[in-house]
Amino acid sequence: MLHLTIKNMAVIALDLGGTKLSGAIFEPDGTMVDRTVLSLEKRVGDEVGKLIQDLINNLMNIAVTRGKAINSVACCVPGIAFSGSGRVWAPNISGWDDYPLLERIRTAIDDTAIGVVIDNDRACSILGEAWKGNAKGCSDAIFLAVGTGIGAGIMINRNILRGSRDVAGAIGWLALDRPYQEKYIRCGCFEYHASGEGLSAVALEMIRDNPGYEGMLRYGELTAHTIFEAYGGGDEIGLEVVNQAIGYWGMAVANLVSLFNPEKIIFGGGVFGPASRFLDDIMLEARKWSQPVSIGQVKLQSSLLGADAGLYGAAFLALKGKT
Amino acid sequence: MLHLTIKNMAVIALDLGGTKLSGAIFEPDGTMVDRTVLSLEKRVGDEVGKLIQDLINNLMNIAVTRGKAINSVACCVPGIAFSGSGRVWAPNISGWDDYPLLERIRTAIDDTAIGVVIDNDRACSILGEAWKGNAKGCSDAIFLAVGTGIGAGIMINRNILRGSRDVAGAIGWLALDRPYQEKYIRCGCFEYHASGEGLSAVALEMIRDNPGYEGMLRYGELTAHTIFEAYGGGDEIGLEVVNQAIGYWGMAVANLVSLFNPEKIIFGGGVFGPASRFLDDIMLEARKWSQPVSIGQVKLQSSLLGADAGLYGAAFLALKGKT
Repeated sequence: MLHLTIKNMAVIALDLGGTKLSGAIFEPDGTMVDRTVLSLEKRVGDEVGKLIQDLINNLMNIAVTRGKAINSVACCVPGIAFSGSGRVWAPNISGWDDYPLLERIRTAIDDTAIGVVIDNDRACSILGEAWKGNAKGCSDAIFLAVGTGIGAGIMINRNILRGSRDVAGAIGWLALDRPYQEKYIRCGCFEYHASGEGLSAVALEMIRDNPGYEGMLRYGELTAHTIFEAYGGGDEIGLEVVNQAIGYWGMAVANLVSLFNPEKIIFGGGVFGPASRFLDDIMLEARKWSQPVSIGQVKLQSSLLGADAGLYGAAFLALKGKT
Repeated sequence: MLHLTIKNMAVIALDLGGTKLSGAIFEPDGTMVDRTVLSLEKRVGDEVGKLIQDLINNLMNIAVTRGKAINSVACCVPGIAFSGSGRVWAPNISGWDDYPLLERIRTAIDDTAIGVVIDNDRACSILGEAWKGNAKGCSDAIFLAVGTGIGAGIMINRNILRGSRDVAGAIGWLALDRPYQEKYIRCGCFEYHASGEGLSAVALEMIRDNPGYEGMLRYGELTAHTIFEAYGGGDEIGLEVVNQAIGYWGMAVANLVSLFNPEKIIFGGGVFGPASRFLDDIMLEARKWSQPVSIGQVKLQSSLLGADAGLYGAAFLALKGKT
């Protein structure tokens, strides 16, 4: 009987993003079943908590019908998960400045024997890649998430770098160019120049500064996607914006390598994606700046799990507990 | 009898620098006795190993006369200590590209029950400050050593950040200003601009670029010391060099804070020392660049243990084992 019980254990993993909520049941070997993706639509504050609660209840019911016993639930969040309080700061979800997510999830679950873990999406992404993705087998690896913003999940000797108060990995704030400019105040120098939003902002600046420009890029249509298209088409501003971003990505890689001496840096987020084709160029840039021994020991790769990296990482946490 | 034995246990700690070797006996409570400092003079290669061996033997003999039983020996080195092999790379000691220090120390000690630990000086400095200095009570703190070169000892959750192959903390290589310049190739961007040698190199460049300069600084007398004097005297190049260095130190602090979210950054090495009076200015610079929550949680301080930080850290390792 004991044998049967163990065989049918499973966990629930959730990945909350700025616009959607994903969830799935995971078997102990990492098999994902019953994956669900819900749009947040216009939900704010506790409505998002309610959606999480509903999804957990749905997945619990599905688990029952499949004869599985859920013994743990984990959720990753787009922001900071404070480990002491179980509260969350998530800047892209209105009303989540200090949201009591752990408490909310606990009320969704009758059985107090079921464990609940909350963690941030960067941490979950590198844990996911280390478990089932391109960082498999690594003990020291970094997930560099370049989307609307930029963040890093940093794994050291198989543990996540959390910092003294859970705010570590805020790599978008890297200072990479002098002098300081007031425009860095909202998101930091690196993120200003090289995030998805940053690419658009830099392109906009360049179009404004070049009144004679008649290339492929248009005001109002500036996205990472159109900029990569313009780059592919040889457009002068497209080339300039992307080459500058490659320079910044290379400097950030160099700094991570000199400080952390990791085995791998995994690129993910919406921009990598399309920018994965530039990994060799980024490595060339990084080589110029970095500690020369360490740079020879690191590999750059794009995420294997893509948009599911965080979900896999949450499942890992649900199965193994927080590191 | 057992009580007496425990009471009389002690360890030997050694700190090898580029020009001198320090050693002492430490009691378990951290009391340092019989401190010795020897000049390396012109020793190279295995002659330095012999000096270490002799100092260990001397301290062992002193311990016997004092009725102390040495049960562990630790040595910190100015370079990289490879944890697997016990070999050392120390660029400032000729012939120590791959020196078998662990083996050398082992041959100095008859009793195989005596533990031997080797570690790098940055790691030992932060461990020393966390044990008996200004980082006491911290679990997440960084020692920024600014001397001839620049290195960082990074403590995360009371463990030293080592990286996948013991090369972590090479902060002198931080990329902080674009574009890349060929002059960074030997030691990295940050170290080029803001180490002790860097201050002199930058001052030299400025004197060359200002043929009409008739200030306090002279070719051939450029050291961190004369530059700080010139700064104090209001000399234009002295002011410019130091202010630029404050800018770089601030950016480096910001990057450490955004990535690691530490409780403290401790400044040490020959330059801090005199530059400790600029810690408030460095904090002002760092505040501009850094993740805003993390920068509010960190304190900058100069080293309490000064030149003995590494020795205390080695004693800590000898007493507690490597982390």
